[in-house]
Amino acid sequence: MNRKENILIIGAGLCGSLLALRLAQRGYNVNVYEMRPDLRKTNISAGRSINLAFSNRGNKAMALVGLEDKVKSLCIPMHGRMIHDKQGNTFMSNYSGREQEYINSVSRGELNALLLTEAEKHDHVNIYFNKKCKSVNFENTTALFKDYETKTEFVEDADCIIATDGAGSALRKSYYLGKKFLFSFSQNYLAHGYKELSILPTTAGDYKTFKNALHIWPRGDFMLIALPNLDGSFTVTLFLSYNQGKYNFNNLTTPETVTNFFKEEFPDALKIMPNVVEDFFKNPTGALGTIKCSPWHFKGNTLLMGDAAHAIVPFYGQGMNASFEDVVEFDAVLNKHEGNWENVFTEYEKNRKKDTDAIADLAIDNFYEMRDHVGQAIFQEKRKIEMALEKEYPEDYASKYSLVTFNEHIGYQEAMLKGRAQDKAILNLLSNNLISSNDDIKIILDKVSSETETILKENKIAGL
Amino acid sequence: MNRKENILIIGAGLCGSLLALRLAQRGYNVNVYEMRPDLRKTNISAGRSINLAFSNRGNKAMALVGLEDKVKSLCIPMHGRMIHDKQGNTFMSNYSGREQEYINSVSRGELNALLLTEAEKHDHVNIYFNKKCKSVNFENTTALFKDYETKTEFVEDADCIIATDGAGSALRKSYYLGKKFLFSFSQNYLAHGYKELSILPTTAGDYKTFKNALHIWPRGDFMLIALPNLDGSFTVTLFLSYNQGKYNFNNLTTPETVTNFFKEEFPDALKIMPNVVEDFFKNPTGALGTIKCSPWHFKGNTLLMGDAAHAIVPFYGQGMNASFEDVVEFDAVLNKHEGNWENVFTEYEKNRKKDTDAIADLAIDNFYEMRDHVGQAIFQEKRKIEMALEKEYPEDYASKYSLVTFNEHIGYQEAMLKGRAQDKAILNLLSNNLISSNDDIKIILDKVSSETETILKENKIAGL
Repeated sequence: MNRKENILIIGAGLCGSLLALRLAQRGYNVNVYEMRPDLRKTNISAGRSINLAFSNRGNKAMALVGLEDKVKSLCIPMHGRMIHDKQGNTFMSNYSGREQEYINSVSRGELNALLLTEAEKHDHVNIYFNKKCKSVNFENTTALFKDYETKTEFVEDADCIIATDGAGSALRKSYYLGKKFLFSFSQNYLAHGYKELSILPTTAGDYKTFKNALHIWPRGDFMLIALPNLDGSFTVTLFLSYNQGKYNFNNLTTPETVTNFFKEEFPDALKIMPNVVEDFFKNPTGALGTIKCSPWHFKGNTLLMGDAAHAIVPFYGQGMNASFEDVVEFDAVLNKHEGNWENVFTEYEKNRKKDTDAIADLAIDNFYEMRDHVGQAIFQEKRKIEMALEKEYPEDYASKYSLVTFNEHIGYQEAMLKGRAQDKAILNLLSNNLISSNDDIKIILDKVSSETETILKENKIAGL
Repeated sequence: MNRKENILIIGAGLCGSLLALRLAQRGYNVNVYEMRPDLRKTNISAGRSINLAFSNRGNKAMALVGLEDKVKSLCIPMHGRMIHDKQGNTFMSNYSGREQEYINSVSRGELNALLLTEAEKHDHVNIYFNKKCKSVNFENTTALFKDYETKTEFVEDADCIIATDGAGSALRKSYYLGKKFLFSFSQNYLAHGYKELSILPTTAGDYKTFKNALHIWPRGDFMLIALPNLDGSFTVTLFLSYNQGKYNFNNLTTPETVTNFFKEEFPDALKIMPNVVEDFFKNPTGALGTIKCSPWHFKGNTLLMGDAAHAIVPFYGQGMNASFEDVVEFDAVLNKHEGNWENVFTEYEKNRKKDTDAIADLAIDNFYEMRDHVGQAIFQEKRKIEMALEKEYPEDYASKYSLVTFNEHIGYQEAMLKGRAQDKAILNLLSNNLISSNDDIKIILDKVSSETETILKENKIAGL
């Protein structure tokens, strides 16, 4: 195998910069082209530092490239959801009955900067900014770029091209428009959009609300969430329908209506967000979409990775983690088939797609769960039972959330199938009055395990 | 309301010509543009007359426009599947335990010609052929056409535009490329393609195999089917993987391999298909895709109907029936909201999309059922029980197939939810040895009904 092969990576976001680093560590020549300016040289003002949930699957990738400790220093642990009701009461709902299981808030910009800097430490890595990919000739393994600085276009050649250029991927578009093969593709939008807002630090630089939680103001058809930043601020996101309900993105058009909306629905948040109106009208309204496609690769020439292959909605906090795990899975397939890109790409997609399809579906499920289920008594009873099971039997029980978030040794698909069956088992047992949260916890564990097995068996027979 | 409104219909296929007829009956001025030549003036040779399955939902539409009797004369009843095994043994599996429930083979061309002729009987209907729609300006309610005869392009204006231009719809493409609103869209291909072949009549003009059945040669990973035509021929379709298995479309490249394939797998069919090699290389290999999208309409300007909105795979025999039922549903909404196209289009999509999504999923399910399940003992036992239930309790039991195909008073979604729960109930009861086909049929009915209710209740609680 020739370790001097030239890899062209389109996009230097989280997935692309991690992939560049890993391929450089493996000895490849890597050229990365990014449409945006170098984020390490642009000034990100306080309160605008967007953050993401970072958890075990993402950490597995950081361990692979030797950055576990450096990333840890960027992380703020969040041990659970802090729920805010309409009266401003709060209560904490931990993510797991096991203490060591928590997620982290991390700055997208800081993490991306670290990965870029680590990748560039390798001589055979070059990262070019302000170069937008317009299309990819996947039959010839070349890509057409526009240089935003010189306003000229140029073509780059490579031994293989990997597109990590996000939900609007140029390579995916070339697959679709090229009509050279049957390309299955879907883009599905929710009827809700999102808007980023902020809770600024106190003048002393302190957090205005509890630091180590993911704050959530669930309101049925819409919700507000907040994740902490290292500088004392929180990044806040409003999820709201475009056109349904009393308040929606289409009718929140004046400072008065925005203020009234927050006064009515999020009075405690409004108190610590005096800047809400300014934020609301300064920031764009974003769409929430899921993208799936297949095949990801064309022969051994080109491959889609990260959001370019599988963009998901943010309701499971797994978008970045899934993209990082892509690189771990890709690396494992490289160990097996290095030297034959077509075999690498084929096996990578075969192994990986079932899992990224699963996390896409789980993320949609969670949107409806958060909206419709959180308030129902039977779901609250179920959650209570699951927390008790995880606490008393940490080795024997993991909820769907734990399987997805903290059990990085199993794939998303396995986590989904087992997690869904468990959920159904507990709900069946509760609705038939066969268990209650006052029962002996060992008896509950046995009944849930047995009912879960039955459901999995019956699903298998029915071909589900 | 102004009954002189001008409706532009793109596509004069089965859905478009039926829609034109119905809107003419309601008093609208209708202009239809079709890319192909007038099929009533082209010569369709024997054996090339493609046929389709016509059943209750399609018939509902024919009744609406007063063509039930005329269509009946084009129909060949098929009472069940005639299964052909590898040894050439055949056995008949009826579609229903109720005698009056059967499906029909009908010629696509004859049916389309009838609808065109009936539509053109109305003075205020004009149908233009050889005019291909290239794009639709949905904001201005205009469409751009290319005239294949004069080679010129022209723009047509209308009060509203309805696109019934099939899976490759120009309007749908304009929605997607226009990026004027969030357009959810999916195209998903199966790894199998299809090829049309034929069984010609005897020299005396008779059928070479049993006329009143849908013939099927199931072979696990691939299959052959045949539907009768009025002229004594059968249209045969081979469903086969593009690249998997010993024989596939990619490696069937010589007359010898095609002949060997048929000799090994379909010896009884080969005997009555001396023309198989000629057909095989003359006819293209078609792809099997599912298309879903949303929204179907832009304001009150434009609307997608039929395959343009929801193309499905052919494994439930419901493609044409679903498109015809679209017109029935649209007509019902017109009765309610006539005069306000935006309300008509909005309510039509709201009512209809859940059902076309359901039949798309059912058709995919059936592909896997036919491939993977038909040969399993538990599925055969289930089918036996269902036939007995339908025969003994025709008022109390209808299988999923019957609910979808013969129960046109309920929607596809309801049929799917109930049908799937019933399937799972019978399989659960069988696998737990709680019923057997030797039991008293009344006891089976009660157990199946009760288990089905439990499954539906549990699914509801789980939010499925």
